Amino acid sequence: MSQNLKIQGGRSDFASMQDRDRDLLMSHLAAFWGEYREHSAHGRVVPFQSQISLSNILNEDLPQEESSAEELFSQVTRLLRDYTVKTASPMFLGYVTPPATEMGVFADALTSIANQNVSFATLSPIGTAFESTAISWLHEIVGMAGDNGGILTSGGSEANLYAMAVARRWALGSDFNTLGYAGSGKQLRIYCSDETHHSIDKAAMVLGLGSNNIVRIPVDKYHRIKLDLLVKAIRRDQDDVRYQPLMIVGNAGTRMCCAFDDLGALRSIADDTKTWLHVDAAYGGFFRLANSYPKHLNSLGDADSLIIDPHKLLFVPYDCGALLVRRRSDLSECFGGAEGEYLEPTLSEGMVNFANLGVQLGRSMRGLKVWLSLKRFGANAYGMEIDRLLSLAQTLKGILESDKDFQLLGPVEGTALCFRWRGLSAPVDRVNGLNSAVRRAVLQRGVAFVDEVSIKGKVGMRVCMTNFRTRPEHLGRLVQEIRAVAKGGH
Amino acid sequence: MSQNLKIQGGRSDFASMQDRDRDLLMSHLAAFWGEYREHSAHGRVVPFQSQISLSNILNEDLPQEESSAEELFSQVTRLLRDYTVKTASPMFLGYVTPPATEMGVFADALTSIANQNVSFATLSPIGTAFESTAISWLHEIVGMAGDNGGILTSGGSEANLYAMAVARRWALGSDFNTLGYAGSGKQLRIYCSDETHHSIDKAAMVLGLGSNNIVRIPVDKYHRIKLDLLVKAIRRDQDDVRYQPLMIVGNAGTRMCCAFDDLGALRSIADDTKTWLHVDAAYGGFFRLANSYPKHLNSLGDADSLIIDPHKLLFVPYDCGALLVRRRSDLSECFGGAEGEYLEPTLSEGMVNFANLGVQLGRSMRGLKVWLSLKRFGANAYGMEIDRLLSLAQTLKGILESDKDFQLLGPVEGTALCFRWRGLSAPVDRVNGLNSAVRRAVLQRGVAFVDEVSIKGKVGMRVCMTNFRTRPEHLGRLVQEIRAVAKGGH
Repeated sequence: MSQNLKIQGGRSDFASMQDRDRDLLMSHLAAFWGEYREHSAHGRVVPFQSQISLSNILNEDLPQEESSAEELFSQVTRLLRDYTVKTASPMFLGYVTPPATEMGVFADALTSIANQNVSFATLSPIGTAFESTAISWLHEIVGMAGDNGGILTSGGSEANLYAMAVARRWALGSDFNTLGYAGSGKQLRIYCSDETHHSIDKAAMVLGLGSNNIVRIPVDKYHRIKLDLLVKAIRRDQDDVRYQPLMIVGNAGTRMCCAFDDLGALRSIADDTKTWLHVDAAYGGFFRLANSYPKHLNSLGDADSLIIDPHKLLFVPYDCGALLVRRRSDLSECFGGAEGEYLEPTLSEGMVNFANLGVQLGRSMRGLKVWLSLKRFGANAYGMEIDRLLSLAQTLKGILESDKDFQLLGPVEGTALCFRWRGLSAPVDRVNGLNSAVRRAVLQRGVAFVDEVSIKGKVGMRVCMTNFRTRPEHLGRLVQEIRAVAKGGH
Repeated sequence: MSQNLKIQGGRSDFASMQDRDRDLLMSHLAAFWGEYREHSAHGRVVPFQSQISLSNILNEDLPQEESSAEELFSQVTRLLRDYTVKTASPMFLGYVTPPATEMGVFADALTSIANQNVSFATLSPIGTAFESTAISWLHEIVGMAGDNGGILTSGGSEANLYAMAVARRWALGSDFNTLGYAGSGKQLRIYCSDETHHSIDKAAMVLGLGSNNIVRIPVDKYHRIKLDLLVKAIRRDQDDVRYQPLMIVGNAGTRMCCAFDDLGALRSIADDTKTWLHVDAAYGGFFRLANSYPKHLNSLGDADSLIIDPHKLLFVPYDCGALLVRRRSDLSECFGGAEGEYLEPTLSEGMVNFANLGVQLGRSMRGLKVWLSLKRFGANAYGMEIDRLLSLAQTLKGILESDKDFQLLGPVEGTALCFRWRGLSAPVDRVNGLNSAVRRAVLQRGVAFVDEVSIKGKVGMRVCMTNFRTRPEHLGRLVQEIRAVAKGGH
């Protein structure tokens, strides 16, 4: 240590700044919250032109001196107003990025004020209880029998990675944690449809299984995995000395068209082949709350593990995903073996230490926003809203089907629609380029946010009904906007 | 899909509830924020007795109907007041769990209101810019030359896991992502001191390297890794056909005594042995802002990768960690290979798509709280505060050294102290049990929060000076409390 340690010791300037900041920020927060919502309702959805200059706006060195809270407040709220994509706009229809409820925002604010670390029950008793209850309610929603095993994560990608790690540990036994891949000869194989989310490939890369060992099976016209081809692929690998079939990944809401695999059939195949059944229900799991949910969701809870994202259809702010498992011990045996010397055995009887069920040790109190959202609105209101979104999707489907300028690119079973501007019977390559340009121009004009998709070589656009502010008239406006852009010569 | 899809279509009840909720919650939030701080300053730190009954309090089935926002507000604020550990109390001195600043809370509230997904620049231009700037400022703080590569994570455990994955990809080349461990014969070896955080073991387990391949090297009396033993261990493995040395993990703030490895020497050893140098500076990296920082931190920026946690000494709320790398391409080559069909190439020129630098796809706007905190307080104020915390640690060290009832269990170079109640020359086993009981009773009485530690078989307590509200008089109160409990017959 250097020699000139100053003994200051007394009251910290940091501490004395907090009370002043709190009063000031609170009054500003109240103003900003309403103004930002107003702006989101009526302003541009996408601040597109500004993107390239953004790095200049924030291009400064590490600040050495303090700034006044007043000035900073003006600066930051201007930046947020001008340069965020307005996910709360009724015309935001991209990805699976629903708006957050105000109760979700409120829960996040409480979470930050209390600043709990939900790693050990001793460090946050109520945070642990909120998360445990949230997990058990998610179990009820998906209909999973078992001991309410699970953990909240940052989202679906992390939860899919956890699930693959858990299945591997289950298949390879207790030595795997200590020995790793040393000496294990066979390559573990994972089976899923070719419409499965790429987070599965990323998980295989990070965990060291290798993305080549993701076996992608074609889908039928409903975008469901072809069961006969799946069985054939597993049987073929079982007969190959290089391979060991590990898990089947089913979809409850594919990433493009929100299609649903036949989960009951996947359960039987997993039983027959002694593989682990994991279901990606990040998006579609909550459809079970609706009256009109796709029938294959009846078997959702029979999976060995599944993921479901509260930051999708529970409308909680980013980020919040969840992994649910039928046996909690599968999680703790995978992640609990390295607790080290932070021991908190006696102070948390009957409560879970979530640090032992996943990778994170510093863990924010995500359970509160799930708990508070389900308490505020209740399962019935969520169900009605999801029915409304399913109905909106059918409404747009009807509009597009009756309009010769548009072409649907896949089935519409859930709340996502993939389609394209058909153009004037141009060759495929020109239609692809046209749709890409149209989508880009829609974003540039700032009126709406839609995705670009490519399905079997056909480039188009994707709209996802996950927005409780979107009404039928907004769909008309979207179709009008796309037509205006496309006919405008792009 | 079932047959009875109701066409509702119109305005969503969900949408209409938001404006009412916002006004109500905003007024309640203002009241709660101040009250909770007041309660944290003067109330119990630990609500210990209540833990066992908590699962009963929240023991209800999934709510079907809505609750009024008013009732819910009363219920949740009562639960938070009564059952959180008060990390904002000046007597909270456990783990490395500093209090959050009000500016950090404010930033989180803005983040939740704007609800950005900082995965692709197109989805959140300003969120991407905040995170990029935050990463470049963290590079400045640690003195890392390079191209400002890095990503914000949930915390140090996730960041350590990323670093190990990045080093592995660097060592094994581009085929690793697709092939995984198939056919790769050698076990990758990781070297670190036996005071290194167990998240390294967990990462090795999850990534499939196996915790047996973590080679733990003894420390000297300053808790620094013994360099000669480190070199010997690497050379021995280089001569063994089973092994391939992969990375050295240095510590800038060990988890127990906050000791600092000789990072300059580790850099030379890594160069000589062609291994990757990673440094765990989750806690100690920010000490570089202080006048009186440990000299080994001069070489911190020479690492190939390092982690540093803004939810530690930047006082931002949970959760926020960071991984910094010298070459951004090391990150993108490890994590960027599975982007799938969510393509956003043209809309984000010159900006990073953070989804390609890590596992998460749904990513909250963590960059804002780092940016806003450094803007508000500036590097100098953080430096002064860390000097004050270092000084507080020396003050407590002086108190404990001059008191025959206490015994230090390790060096005090940073802001953590490990010590124990010595008792009356009892046998070691009884002193261990006594210290465990004393610590537990301290928590039960609720006056202070300290950890339990075990160092070389000696059980004791640990205090971590990371709290800007803690003043010298609180240390006196802590010592008094421990003495009262210990002499009270535990």
